Formats: sequence, structure tokens, C-alpha cells
Amino acid sequence: MPYPDEAVGFMADGPESFGTFTKRAYKLKPFEEFDIDVKVEACGICGSDVHTVSGGWGEQLFPLCCGHEIVGTAVRVGPKVTTIKEGQRVGIGAQAYSCGECKQCRNGNENYCPVNSINTYGSKWPDTGIVSQGGYGSHVRAHEHWVFPIPEALETTNVAPMLCAGLTAFSRWYATVPGRGRRLALGAETWAISRSRAKEADAKKLGADGYIATAEEGWEKPHLTSFDLIVNCANSSKGFDLPRYLSMMDVHGRWISVGLPEEEGQVIKAQNLISNGVLIGATHIGNRQEMLAMLKLAAEKGLRSYVEEIQIGEEGLKQAMQRMKKGDVRYRFILTGYDKHFARDLKI
Amino acid sequence: MPYPDEAVGFMADGPESFGTFTKRAYKLKPFEEFDIDVKVEACGICGSDVHTVSGGWGEQLFPLCCGHEIVGTAVRVGPKVTTIKEGQRVGIGAQAYSCGECKQCRNGNENYCPVNSINTYGSKWPDTGIVSQGGYGSHVRAHEHWVFPIPEALETTNVAPMLCAGLTAFSRWYATVPGRGRRLALGAETWAISRSRAKEADAKKLGADGYIATAEEGWEKPHLTSFDLIVNCANSSKGFDLPRYLSMMDVHGRWISVGLPEEEGQVIKAQNLISNGVLIGATHIGNRQEMLAMLKLAAEKGLRSYVEEIQIGEEGLKQAMQRMKKGDVRYRFILTGYDKHFARDLKI
Repeated sequence: MPYPDEAVGFMADGPESFGTFTKRAYKLKPFEEFDIDVKVEACGICGSDVHTVSGGWGEQLFPLCCGHEIVGTAVRVGPKVTTIKEGQRVGIGAQAYSCGECKQCRNGNENYCPVNSINTYGSKWPDTGIVSQGGYGSHVRAHEHWVFPIPEALETTNVAPMLCAGLTAFSRWYATVPGRGRRLALGAETWAISRSRAKEADAKKLGADGYIATAEEGWEKPHLTSFDLIVNCANSSKGFDLPRYLSMMDVHGRWISVGLPEEEGQVIKAQNLISNGVLIGATHIGNRQEMLAMLKLAAEKGLRSYVEEIQIGEEGLKQAMQRMKKGDVRYRFILTGYDKHFARDLKI
Repeated sequence: MPYPDEAVGFMADGPESFGTFTKRAYKLKPFEEFDIDVKVEACGICGSDVHTVSGGWGEQLFPLCCGHEIVGTAVRVGPKVTTIKEGQRVGIGAQAYSCGECKQCRNGNENYCPVNSINTYGSKWPDTGIVSQGGYGSHVRAHEHWVFPIPEALETTNVAPMLCAGLTAFSRWYATVPGRGRRLALGAETWAISRSRAKEADAKKLGADGYIATAEEGWEKPHLTSFDLIVNCANSSKGFDLPRYLSMMDVHGRWISVGLPEEEGQVIKAQNLISNGVLIGATHIGNRQEMLAMLKLAAEKGLRSYVEEIQIGEEGLKQAMQRMKKGDVRYRFILTGYDKHFARDLKI
């Protein structure tokens, strides 16, 4: 009997059936006093979903209902929840729980909680061992710390990608590392870097001041030691000439990867890093404070994602996965049509 | 006719004759108005010298007189020099010139000057193409920006290693990156990390609060996410299990390499960096401001290097190189006896 004990959603069974999703009911973790149930209305399809379903990131707890850029309505709110009211529009990103008590949680680094970090899908909830399931389904249950009110100015289908992709890029690398990131404050000079010029017009529309096409001869030369930060969104490290990118970094600049390619990694020597003392890092989504700040900023400045809507269902998910694999999306698929699709399942 | 047009020193001819040094006279760059000539009295033997002479860092401008932890007397001071007086005791580290005009030089990053950075040995001076030569010789000529007064409280043979090794470790990673490095200010809790326990007593004498021996089972476990900074001084990356070290870093901590191993580098995946958002970097010596601050600190706090003196000459250099290759030094060889050794050469 689906909801409130179960949700119903589209599950992947493993890499061998990549692109095939089967609708099933699955257990939700026991509802606790800080939990919030979200009835999903839209969900972005993140690169993580593809890496997970394809097996590129290694073993997973299949069957799995992916999706961690979730927007919907809080339909049930635990008695100790103070941040959200029933009926409110909310979002859930890639994390559903953190212990709240460890050093990292106390320091505002709850997205790095080493004690009990639960991903929105694919983690085992402690005690019960029930696997967390995400936004390709009818409902998602999460701790209130990881459920965010969505400002009125933002559209449901448009805000979804901000909850993982947006937050990851916005996170403290941009906002709060003191002393660095000055050019990254609002009004920063921003360039888009891509292989070809295919995305140039879009990048300019999105506000890029300049554009670098790395398929062109000598692309890095005019930019030597000029960038304070490069956010590396590449989905693959194949054929990636890292030293040329690093040569564009200003002294003590930061090269931050937000993508997690499936390949074995890149060889890095200290010698590649000393000509400008560049720092190499990666970032794991963001904390609650950053999420709220990002949503506020998006609402105030009218920031919008480029999205393509797709109806939730076997067919829509298959198409989305196949097109994602080819990089054929401008720039995020958003699953919609939940109400219509799940209406019957939830009445059974 | 040696000095002032030439110096005389011990030159290496290439990797095939590793450990053999031949005394020769060689040209100094033309003396210019901001230059200072230093008559060498002591010089540390840096790991860089060994990597250079052994060919491990690739091709070099042999024959080469190494040595870039130089202490001596300013015996000639250009007419525009304002920082040093003739007869003053001074030091020279690993850099002898920077353009002084580029963005990096203007921003206090002159140790990263991309326009015209001259190493103390092994670089071609512009215009003349004369190769810079270091402290295994009688005299070194450098721009005043890279010649530093040595505080009275510091001993000539003891301060030498601070001029490269000391500065590199002291540099802004410790001192001036805002927000980070707080535990690295004076009074920071400091641990020494080494393979065995062989250096434990020395580390404690040097002020380490704790000691980790990586040959021991589970060495990283008690320290997970606890270090703000690890300065990696390893001379080789062979068998180096980087992810275990990184697991000890606190969120957004920094792993900074100050050694430049000869191997091909290490494979790094973004996945290794996201559990704590750690940053990986390396550092290239330090700037003038940091050098002066370090020397002042050493003088005020009575900081001392662990050194072993060795007489300059074919025999001393051969022994030093061979023992360095084996890691058999506690902890820095300092060449001394210059006056005695070079007295005759300079009178010819």
C-alpha cells in the first residue's frame, strides 16, 4: 500500500539494463519527528544519476530510484520540524541527512559530515537499513535540515537544477572562502570554457563576459595567470590537458572540480602546480546556509536555469538517459507530470 | 682572472658524473646598479641540488655550480641599492631576480614572476645569456630584491637552510592565507609525520606535539579530518598512499607539497577530494616579505636548524651528495670553510 509507508517510483536495476526504469513501490524510512515528506512535482536529472545508473561510479544499492534535484510540496511535517509548514513548496537536493552533532556539522560543514551522511538516494538509513530513494518517485522523506523553502519568485521546474548543480557551483568556493574569490563576487568577470564554439551564444546569454574554445590553437595563451577560480564541470577527464588549464590560473588560484568523471583520474605532479602555486580541489554540494543564500540570490536577481521538460515515465526516462550519455541536453532535463502520472498508483 | 668578473666554484658536469665536482672559474653576469655581490661563507645543500645534479629534474645548463642557501658578506653594492650596505652579512635563497614590473611582482608574488624569474643557479640571465651560478662557489651576484639582511641573533651556518627550505615551508601557506592556517599561527598544534619512529625524538625536540609513523598499522585512523594543513616534504612519491594522508585533512584543509619528486606524479581523482573538500597544492619558495618575516621570527624566537657542517671541496661535496641520495643527513649539510679554501684561487 503506497504512501505513507511506501512511495512509488521508477527504479533502475543496474548497468546491464541502462536506460530501463521499472515502476515499483518501495519502503520509506520510518517517519521521525524531524522528518518531512515531500510530494514530488519536478526533478532535475543530474549527471550523478547517469553515473550511478550506468555503474560508472561503481557498485550501487540497486534497485534504485534516482533523482536529487527535487521540488514539491511538504505533505507531512514531523512534530519537531520548525522550518517548514505542511503545504509549503520545498526543495531537496543531493543530501537527506547529516548527524548534526559532529565537528563538521557544528562548523557548518554538514555536507562533509563523516559520521552519518545520507544521500537522497542510494544510502542506507541507519537502524533500519532501508535504502534512501530519490525524486524519480512520488514522495521523498528527508530530515528538515535538508529540506528548503523555495522562494515564491522561482518556478518549480526552473529551480530544480539549482538544488544540486547550482548549489555545488555556488558553494563556499564562490561565496565564503575569505580573501580568495574576490573576482567571484557579484559582478565578477566570468568566462565560459568549452571545447567548441557551439555553446558560445548561450554562454553569452547567461552573462559570460568571454568564451574560450579549447579546440582552437593556443586557446590558453591570452589568459596566462589570469583566472582566480576555474570551476571544472567536465564529465570526463579523457584527453584533458590539465597543465594548459592550470597555466591560466592566477597565483594561488583555485581549480575546483564539480564533476566526478568515471575515469581513473589524472596524473598530477607538484611541478605542475608550482609555477603559480595553484590549488586543486573538488567540492561536495553545499551546506544549508549556502543553499538558502543561493535560492535568495536567484529569486532577487531573477536567475534562471536553462531547462528542457520531459514527462516522468519509462519512455521519458529512457530518452533522457540516452541523450545525457551523448551530452545532448541544453542544459538540464526536468521531469514533470508527476501528479498526472502517479495519481492512479497512489490510489491503489 | 677571478672576481670581480668571474667567480670560482665547484661545478657539476651532468648526471653521468654524479657526485663529482670540478673547480673552475666562470663568468658572473655584468654588474648592474641594483646588484649585490656576496662573498659566500656558508651554503646549505638543498634537495634541489641533488635533483638537479642527478638529472632527475631533466635537462640542465651544465656545467653548473649549485647551492641556493647562501650566507656571506656583501662585498660590492650597486649604486642604486638601498637595502644593503657593503660589509653587511646577507643571505641569498633560490631566486636571484624577478622583473619587478609584472602583475605578480606588483602583487607581492614575485616568487611567481612569469616574465623574468632567474633562479640563483641554472637560469640564463637575459641579454647576455650568462648562466646564473650558486653558492658552491666563491661569489654570487644577485638583485638586491633577493638579497636579505641576516639578523644578528642568527648564526651563519645555522640560518643557511632557512633561505630555501625554511622559506618554502614558512611561505604564505602558513602565514597569510586568510581564514585558513589559523592553527598554523604560532602556538599551533603541530605533528610530525614520518615513515618510522627514527626521527621521533628529534621531532619532539623541535617542538612537535605529536608524531605519526606511517609504517604502523592504521596510522591515519586516530587523525581523520583533523589537520588544517599538511606540508608534504617527501622527496619521492613512490609507494605514497595519498588518499590515506588526505583522509586526515579537515574540511577545506590544504595538502601542500614542498618537495618536487622526480617520479611521474600521482593519480588524483576528484572523488578522492570530495569527502572533505581538501585542496592540493605546491609552493614555490616565498616572496621577500615572507623571507624577512621568517628571519625576524627565527631571531626573536631563537629558532635553529639541525645542521651538519661539511668542508667545501671535491671530497666534501661528493660525500654530501652520496649521503643525501641515501637520506643520510640530520638534517641539512652546510658547506663551510670557504675563506680557507678559496683564498688561493682568488689571489691567482
